[in-house]
Amino acid sequence: MKIITESTPAADGFRMPAEYESHEGCIMIFPERPDSWQYGGYAARRAFSRVAEAIARSEKVTVCASEAQYDNARAMLPEQVRVVEMSSNDAWARDYAPTFVKNSRGEVRGIDWGFNAWGGLVDGLYFPWDKDNRMARKLCDLLETDVYDKRDFILEGGSIHVDGEGTGMVTESCLLSKGRNPDRSREEIEDILKEYLNLSTVLWLPCGIYGDETNEHVDNICAFVAPGEVVLAWTEDEKDPQYAMSKACLEYLEQAVDAKGRHIQVHKLPLPKPVLMTEEECRGLDECWDEPTRRPGERLAASYVNFYISNGNIIMPGFGDPADETAKEILQGLFPEREVVQIYARDILIGGGNIHCITQQIPEHC
Amino acid sequence: MKIITESTPAADGFRMPAEYESHEGCIMIFPERPDSWQYGGYAARRAFSRVAEAIARSEKVTVCASEAQYDNARAMLPEQVRVVEMSSNDAWARDYAPTFVKNSRGEVRGIDWGFNAWGGLVDGLYFPWDKDNRMARKLCDLLETDVYDKRDFILEGGSIHVDGEGTGMVTESCLLSKGRNPDRSREEIEDILKEYLNLSTVLWLPCGIYGDETNEHVDNICAFVAPGEVVLAWTEDEKDPQYAMSKACLEYLEQAVDAKGRHIQVHKLPLPKPVLMTEEECRGLDECWDEPTRRPGERLAASYVNFYISNGNIIMPGFGDPADETAKEILQGLFPEREVVQIYARDILIGGGNIHCITQQIPEHC
Repeated sequence: MKIITESTPAADGFRMPAEYESHEGCIMIFPERPDSWQYGGYAARRAFSRVAEAIARSEKVTVCASEAQYDNARAMLPEQVRVVEMSSNDAWARDYAPTFVKNSRGEVRGIDWGFNAWGGLVDGLYFPWDKDNRMARKLCDLLETDVYDKRDFILEGGSIHVDGEGTGMVTESCLLSKGRNPDRSREEIEDILKEYLNLSTVLWLPCGIYGDETNEHVDNICAFVAPGEVVLAWTEDEKDPQYAMSKACLEYLEQAVDAKGRHIQVHKLPLPKPVLMTEEECRGLDECWDEPTRRPGERLAASYVNFYISNGNIIMPGFGDPADETAKEILQGLFPEREVVQIYARDILIGGGNIHCITQQIPEHC
Repeated sequence: MKIITESTPAADGFRMPAEYESHEGCIMIFPERPDSWQYGGYAARRAFSRVAEAIARSEKVTVCASEAQYDNARAMLPEQVRVVEMSSNDAWARDYAPTFVKNSRGEVRGIDWGFNAWGGLVDGLYFPWDKDNRMARKLCDLLETDVYDKRDFILEGGSIHVDGEGTGMVTESCLLSKGRNPDRSREEIEDILKEYLNLSTVLWLPCGIYGDETNEHVDNICAFVAPGEVVLAWTEDEKDPQYAMSKACLEYLEQAVDAKGRHIQVHKLPLPKPVLMTEEECRGLDECWDEPTRRPGERLAASYVNFYISNGNIIMPGFGDPADETAKEILQGLFPEREVVQIYARDILIGGGNIHCITQQIPEHC
C-alpha cells in the first residue's frame, strides 16, 4: 500500500463513483459496544447479519469483527461473507472506511479522511475514536489499494453523496459544524471536496433529519438515485420540526443546478411516524461518556433514505410503520432493475444510524 | 469460506505442493511477546522485517500484526508488504497458518490442524494458545479459500515437509510425542498425513536438532531441495550430541525409498558452532509460564536448514559463524536459479526457531 501525500485524486484522474455504479463489494463492521447497541449488541448483530446476507446476494461482503466477536461473527454470517479481524470503536463502516475513488483505467484508491466521532471534543458521540480513525488505512492495506492521506480534514462517508458525474451533495449543518474543521471556510471545504472527490459542483443542503446526532448527515435525508435525480425524506405534518427542515432542503434543491447544468428532479420519500425510544430499550443500553446514551421517549432519526444500493438490490430499512410499504414502492419504482429488500431496522436505528451508515461500497476495479 | 468436514484433500483431488513450487505469496506474523523476544520484540521485529523484505522481492507478503503493533508494523515494513490486523499468541506462521493444498485445476484450500503450543499441558511452550489456534481459519477467511477442519489432530506446519510428488517427511520425536496425539498410533498418524497431504510415502526421521523445543521439528534438520533430494543438518564433531542425531537421520535416509521409488540423495549442510544464550540476552526476556524462558549458556537450536524458498530467492539464516558462508554456497549450488539471501538471524533464533518457522507459503492459484 502506497500512502499518497503529494497529490490528489483530481490531479491523478481519480473520481468518486456514484453508489449506483458497479461495486466490487461492500465493507461492514460487526456491532459490539454496549452503549451503542442494546444488550451488548445482541439484537444489532442479528440485524447487521441480515443486511450482510442481503448485500452478499449480489456482491462480496467483508465484515470486520473484533477479536472478541470474530467467532461469533463467523457463526452468524453466511459462508459467502468474508470475516476479517479488525479493531474499531463502533460499527459505522460508512464513516470510518475509506471513500474510494477510481480512474478511467479502473484502478481504485482510497481516501483516508480524519475521523473524530462526529465532532471530537466539541460534540462528538464517544471517546476515544482512535481505532475507528485507523480503519480507513487498514482497509486499504487489506484490499491492496493505495491511499490518499487526508487525515488533516475531518469528514465522514455519510456526510457526502455524489452523482458520479461531477456533482456532490452535503449538508451545511454537518460540514460547517464546529466540531469538525472549524478553521476552514465553506469555500475551503468545498475546494477540498472538489479536489478529492473530483467534483465541479457541490450542493449544500441546509440541514438533515431532526435529531440526527451526526450533525445531520446528508445520507439520512437525501440521496442520488440517478444523475440529476434525488430522493428527499419528507413529511406532510407541518407541526413536525422535520417539516421545515425538509422544506428548506426542497427549496434549495428546486433552485439548484448540477455539474451538468441540470435542474434536480426531487422524489419525496415519506418519513415514518416519529420513532421513540422505549424505557425497555433504554434499559438495554450501557452509559456512554458518563451519560445515558438514550432516554425514554427520545426521538430517533428514522428515515427510509438511509438505504444501500448493492449491485443487485436496494437494501432499505423498515420500522413497522404504515409508510414502510409506500417508501418501498417508491424506491422500487426508481430502481426497476434492482429488487428492493426491506429489513426491519429498529435495532440499527437505536445505535444512531441506519443501513447506509453501516455499509461502504468498494467500486468495481480492474 | 466453506468449512469442509465431510471429505479430505486426497478424496477431493488436492495435494500439498512442495515449497519449491510456485507461490502466490507468504504469510508472516509480527513478533511481540516479551517472553519470546528480547526487549519486547524490538530486535526480532527488525529481523522479521528484513525477512519480509527479502521475500517480497519475488512474491506477495502478508504480515499479521496485533492491534497494538499494527502501526509499528506498517512503519517498519516496506509498502509492498501487506499488513493485516490479526491476533496471535506468538509469531510462528509456519505452525499456526493453514497448510495449503491445491488441485490440478489450480484451486487452493487450507487445512486447519489443531494447535496446542507444541505439546499442550504435557510439554507445550506457553499458555494459552487459543489465538494461535484460531489463525488458520481466519487466514483462510482472509484469503477466501475453503478450509478442511482437522482440529482434532494436533500438527504444526514445521513438523512436515513434502516433495510435491507423493512423499512426506516428519520426525518420530515430534509426531509421536506425548503432548500432541497420544491416543493415535503411528499408523493412524501416517494415514492422516497421507489423506490430508495426499501422500503415498511418509519418511520418518528418528529425530531433529538437539535442544529443539518443538520436539524436534523436521524443518530444522532436513528439507527437500528437489524431489528425491534433501539437505540434512550435519556436524563432524563426534562429541556433539547432535552428531548421533544427524547420523541416525542419515542412516534412515540412506535406506529410504520415496513415493516414486527413488533413493534419497542427501546433501550435508554444516551446522554452526553451538550458539549459546548470553547473560545479557537472558536479561532482555520476560519470564514465561513462571519460569525464565532461557538461561545463560543455554544452547539454541541453530541450523541453516531452517530456510524459506520464495519464488525468486532462498532466504536463509546466518549466525556470524564461519560456516555461514559454506552453508550459503551449498544452498546456492542446489538452487542455481534462486539467489540466496542470508539474514543474520540470532534475534529470531532466540525465540526458538528460524526463518522457515516464521513463514508459510501460499501456493500459486488460479
